[in-house]
Amino acid sequence: MAVCHHQVPFKLFTPIPPPNPKPIFRCNLSLPSRPTLLTAEPEPLYTSVKAFAPATVANLGPGFDFLGCAVDGLGDFVSLTVDPQVLPGEISISEISGDHSSKKLSKNPIWNCAGIAAIEVMKMLGVRSVGLSLSLQKGLPLGSGLGSSAASAAAAAVAVNEIFGGKLGVEALVHAGLKSEEKVSGYHADNIAPALMGGFVLIQNYEPLDLLRLSFPLDKELIFVLVSPEFEAPTKKMRAALPTEIGMAHHVWNSSQAGALVAAVLQGDVARLGKALSSDKIVEPKRAPLIPGMEAVKKAAIEAGALGCTISGAGPTAVAVTDNAEKGKEIGERMVAAFLKDGNLKAVASVNRLDRVGARLVSSIPR
Amino acid sequence: MAVCHHQVPFKLFTPIPPPNPKPIFRCNLSLPSRPTLLTAEPEPLYTSVKAFAPATVANLGPGFDFLGCAVDGLGDFVSLTVDPQVLPGEISISEISGDHSSKKLSKNPIWNCAGIAAIEVMKMLGVRSVGLSLSLQKGLPLGSGLGSSAASAAAAAVAVNEIFGGKLGVEALVHAGLKSEEKVSGYHADNIAPALMGGFVLIQNYEPLDLLRLSFPLDKELIFVLVSPEFEAPTKKMRAALPTEIGMAHHVWNSSQAGALVAAVLQGDVARLGKALSSDKIVEPKRAPLIPGMEAVKKAAIEAGALGCTISGAGPTAVAVTDNAEKGKEIGERMVAAFLKDGNLKAVASVNRLDRVGARLVSSIPR
Repeated sequence: MAVCHHQVPFKLFTPIPPPNPKPIFRCNLSLPSRPTLLTAEPEPLYTSVKAFAPATVANLGPGFDFLGCAVDGLGDFVSLTVDPQVLPGEISISEISGDHSSKKLSKNPIWNCAGIAAIEVMKMLGVRSVGLSLSLQKGLPLGSGLGSSAASAAAAAVAVNEIFGGKLGVEALVHAGLKSEEKVSGYHADNIAPALMGGFVLIQNYEPLDLLRLSFPLDKELIFVLVSPEFEAPTKKMRAALPTEIGMAHHVWNSSQAGALVAAVLQGDVARLGKALSSDKIVEPKRAPLIPGMEAVKKAAIEAGALGCTISGAGPTAVAVTDNAEKGKEIGERMVAAFLKDGNLKAVASVNRLDRVGARLVSSIPR
Repeated sequence: MAVCHHQVPFKLFTPIPPPNPKPIFRCNLSLPSRPTLLTAEPEPLYTSVKAFAPATVANLGPGFDFLGCAVDGLGDFVSLTVDPQVLPGEISISEISGDHSSKKLSKNPIWNCAGIAAIEVMKMLGVRSVGLSLSLQKGLPLGSGLGSSAASAAAAAVAVNEIFGGKLGVEALVHAGLKSEEKVSGYHADNIAPALMGGFVLIQNYEPLDLLRLSFPLDKELIFVLVSPEFEAPTKKMRAALPTEIGMAHHVWNSSQAGALVAAVLQGDVARLGKALSSDKIVEPKRAPLIPGMEAVKKAAIEAGALGCTISGAGPTAVAVTDNAEKGKEIGERMVAAFLKDGNLKAVASVNRLDRVGARLVSSIPR
């Protein structure tokens, strides 16, 4: 990602109707229907807003490239202010704070995940008369496998939408977020969709985008143990490690585990979910050896009572699941110890619940 | 399959405990726990019983080799009689009737799907003092892609179990049925498991066998349109047509469709189920060209309003889904017409509901 510390406001285009008259999005969420392109320019309802978007775990073993979920307690904040000093219809990134890795991020909105998503939402809303100043507070380190770029994009998309009264539906925000993901980490919705929608989301199709929300039962407990080592596992390198061809037996195996994983989510069967998550024979076996200690970390997690363990996203974070938060702490400690012993890597553990809400407004100041 | 019209009783072995002390089966069904190996020899409760097992649709597009479901109204019957003329602990096949293709079936129980399953269940029960005479009434043609061998095996397994008071659980019967499938069509549970259990069944693992029952909501309607052309599509030839290596993009696509298919079953979303069923990019594209007219039949089904269409099992039957029985008839007629026009094949259509019960006792005469 380009590094640029100058504040370069970005001129927005007026909205253009989509070229394809067919519906461009299908989603099983029961949301109020909102138009994605608006004719009248909206007024800001607030002078400033602050939005949060959660970390996300994509892939989930056999759910490679089409399944992800949101985890609570970790994520990025975006604050947005109506700023007369910013040219009308433009956006400017005033500050990026938080994790030390955030210093790598550009303040040029067209090169910043939050900036790109914010610009897209402003385009969709048709904002021409108001300038906005954006402050990004990173709670997630870059390249950790926890959907850092998606969290920034999701928080920014929600912040812009909410400051103008929340006129866009989540489907439009996913499209905006995808524009951002496309530029910074590839055209994949398995982080941005759960970051915006919360819970588990399955991406069934991209043309047209068809997202399937998988509701984990409210009365069941699902705990994620996220252990992030001090190690850089760039998405590109991790993607290059993937096999191009897959044997039929492995394809059938992984597909059946993907099906079982989806069923386990919907049925709230954490044991089966963990078992399916742990059972990837295609991606994890190629990527795990590139993360020092990962195989030992998985073994340690299972020995400590985790119901399953795999790589989060493209790594290097390891994700284990359990149905008990107290046990989660112990599992995390054992995983941290294994990263140190077998990978010679320092690591931090975090025990988190499923985030069922997704990106949301956390505070606002009315005009 | 060997053809033998002589009646050859088969000597049963006494039951042998399994070599592996670990549990050999996991199943999410809430069934009363029953031992799979019994010490005391059971007495027959009936002089005769009759059992039915339904047809099954395996593969379901992206569910290739791990997913199947049962359909009502089509299937095989097995009648079983305590017969003093059969040597104690042995079984004899007295009659095979029904579909003309059933003439190909052997009456030697060790070469007959029903016979093999019946023998396995007798072994499990430890039957040593009673001889049984078995009559098989085929409702399903052989090699149609509707789980003909599995229906015979399932009906036989249930008949033997029930005549001795139903001491075995469904898990044991699946194992018995698998012994039969292994001999006649390959070690796959995607027909025998739904034939015995009803509904949709996902096979997550074979070692140990781990079956996942996927309940389609009771208040939703799911209609299968099964169109069988007069064409032989031997399982072996259809299996040889499969690719050995699969590109990553197709693997991800099919896995995501498999996940969506499982979710659609559990959520009772017939539109999504049909869409996922129709979307196989790996198996169907290789097999469909081997069945004359299949591509046109699929097109005709969709044009007639079907929510999805694919090959049932290894073919040649085409299966379409809808949520309306009346519409199902029309879809069937259009599919039959397409088989004739584009494949030059006569075909018969059948409109069936999901069978939620699986193999069952239909009549019995107490001793």
